[in-house]
Amino acid sequence: MSAIRLDGIAIGQQIRAGLRAPVAEFTRQAGRAPGLSLVLVGDDPGSHLYVSSKLRSAGDSGLDAEIHRLPGDTPIDELLRLVDRLNRDERCDGILVQSPLPTQMGADAERRVFDAIDPAKDVDGFHPTNVGKLVQGRADLVACTPSGVIEILERSGIRIAGASAVVIGRSDIVGKPMALLLLHRHATVTICHSRTRDLASVAREADILVAALGRPAFVTTDFVKPGATVIDVGTTPVSDAELVAGWFEPGHKRRDAFERRGSLVMGDVHPGVEAVAGALTPVPGGVGPLTIAMLLKNTVTAAMNRLNGIGL
Amino acid sequence: MSAIRLDGIAIGQQIRAGLRAPVAEFTRQAGRAPGLSLVLVGDDPGSHLYVSSKLRSAGDSGLDAEIHRLPGDTPIDELLRLVDRLNRDERCDGILVQSPLPTQMGADAERRVFDAIDPAKDVDGFHPTNVGKLVQGRADLVACTPSGVIEILERSGIRIAGASAVVIGRSDIVGKPMALLLLHRHATVTICHSRTRDLASVAREADILVAALGRPAFVTTDFVKPGATVIDVGTTPVSDAELVAGWFEPGHKRRDAFERRGSLVMGDVHPGVEAVAGALTPVPGGVGPLTIAMLLKNTVTAAMNRLNGIGL
Repeated sequence: MSAIRLDGIAIGQQIRAGLRAPVAEFTRQAGRAPGLSLVLVGDDPGSHLYVSSKLRSAGDSGLDAEIHRLPGDTPIDELLRLVDRLNRDERCDGILVQSPLPTQMGADAERRVFDAIDPAKDVDGFHPTNVGKLVQGRADLVACTPSGVIEILERSGIRIAGASAVVIGRSDIVGKPMALLLLHRHATVTICHSRTRDLASVAREADILVAALGRPAFVTTDFVKPGATVIDVGTTPVSDAELVAGWFEPGHKRRDAFERRGSLVMGDVHPGVEAVAGALTPVPGGVGPLTIAMLLKNTVTAAMNRLNGIGL
Repeated sequence: MSAIRLDGIAIGQQIRAGLRAPVAEFTRQAGRAPGLSLVLVGDDPGSHLYVSSKLRSAGDSGLDAEIHRLPGDTPIDELLRLVDRLNRDERCDGILVQSPLPTQMGADAERRVFDAIDPAKDVDGFHPTNVGKLVQGRADLVACTPSGVIEILERSGIRIAGASAVVIGRSDIVGKPMALLLLHRHATVTICHSRTRDLASVAREADILVAALGRPAFVTTDFVKPGATVIDVGTTPVSDAELVAGWFEPGHKRRDAFERRGSLVMGDVHPGVEAVAGALTPVPGGVGPLTIAMLLKNTVTAAMNRLNGIGL
């Protein structure tokens, strides 16, 4: 027995295909394409790669995307001034400031910057007003990763209403909004974390198990009820050959890839779970592509709302 | 065996006693008492009683409280203008618009009015910005009933961290904020509702069970693990003598009171649970008094924040 693999690449393409008509309609009505401003501070190679990928995807979908690159020693006030300028820029519909910000900006820099973004342009869904509206079941702009997980479940025909869902991880950007989105779709939702007693047995109650704790291969077969749907949100870079050898047999394509590159991105779910779960998102190619697709969708939503005068 | 009764009246008094020093300090610094504006629209007798009780409690705690009474046929725009005036009133630190609003104001009237209240004066904790900050673990003004439940648990020495908590009910003003507050205190939290399969067996896993669904005596002994702490948020007026006779033996003081008055306020928890639970909040005298105490506490917090220039 082997789990059905839920193909995030294909589902992400479906969503992007669905954006063509609204992008064309917006462009016709507004006389310009929906505008997405990406802000990248410093030289983190992962962030560079990720922002470039967002820029390319946005361009492919007919959005007018731009990157603002700031050096790593930029004072936070300068970043806040840029955000303020983008808030007032009529051609900018969505603002994304890539995290993490450089540590020199201070411990609360991300919070200050996310709070400064106009909620109507907050395509990451991190502004407290949008988070509050999410709780109240009326948010237009919802954090991309959890809303992408909902798309995977719904487009794969996995029943959420009445299901028992367990979310492992309670972050502001994945775990908590994930729990709320599942709750609003009538799942019975349990949120687990590092302080949960007997985590495996709680997880084993789940029809839908979302692993979002950022610990590679943490979720082993004893966490999974046979036939459950397992969503793997983890993406931890791993360069320890011994760990990788423990997860993948010689000749497994991921072990081969590791041996060529010296690192791989590992999910929170142990490869052995594939033999127990009913359906499973792979890493890579599962939740990741949805995060970008939902960013584009949020940008189009924000643009349409601004055009129609629906704002905050 | 009989559950310890968690005395909400005594705990509410503790909280109000703790407000004396900050109220005096604010009054000394500001040259006036913290100001609470209560707004009551229409003639609902329950709302009248409730607002009068809030006014009296606020006065007893040294706050400067006032009631704005508007007739039931007031247009919503007039109510919104009053809110706007209170938002700009320097002497007003907290605004509470009593729900329910008259149906003639429209289905979304409460949402529109709560959204219009300055988040810095939102002593009910209903504004989306305050709800979002609650999700992010940094709210000053949190909905009064769930934050009152936390006070009961903490002041009664009931351990939340590591506990399994089950919340029955997923309303915006009780169930969802309750789940978040328990989660932030490191409980493993499950939210149940009308679509939950085998609700009793899910509830029976709880060390802390919060019943907030508004169905009198719904939570029976088979929902409760022996020794669990049971918090009863329900307050449903009941005037059906047969129902009451099914819950309380002849001679029980609540049945006597019903026979005198022709109605009683019933919680969500069946009286039989007292024999199974380890600790239990009564109705009345459990969560109710905390709701008012937390409203006063929120008003003092809002006043202090405004005095110190901590706003939104």
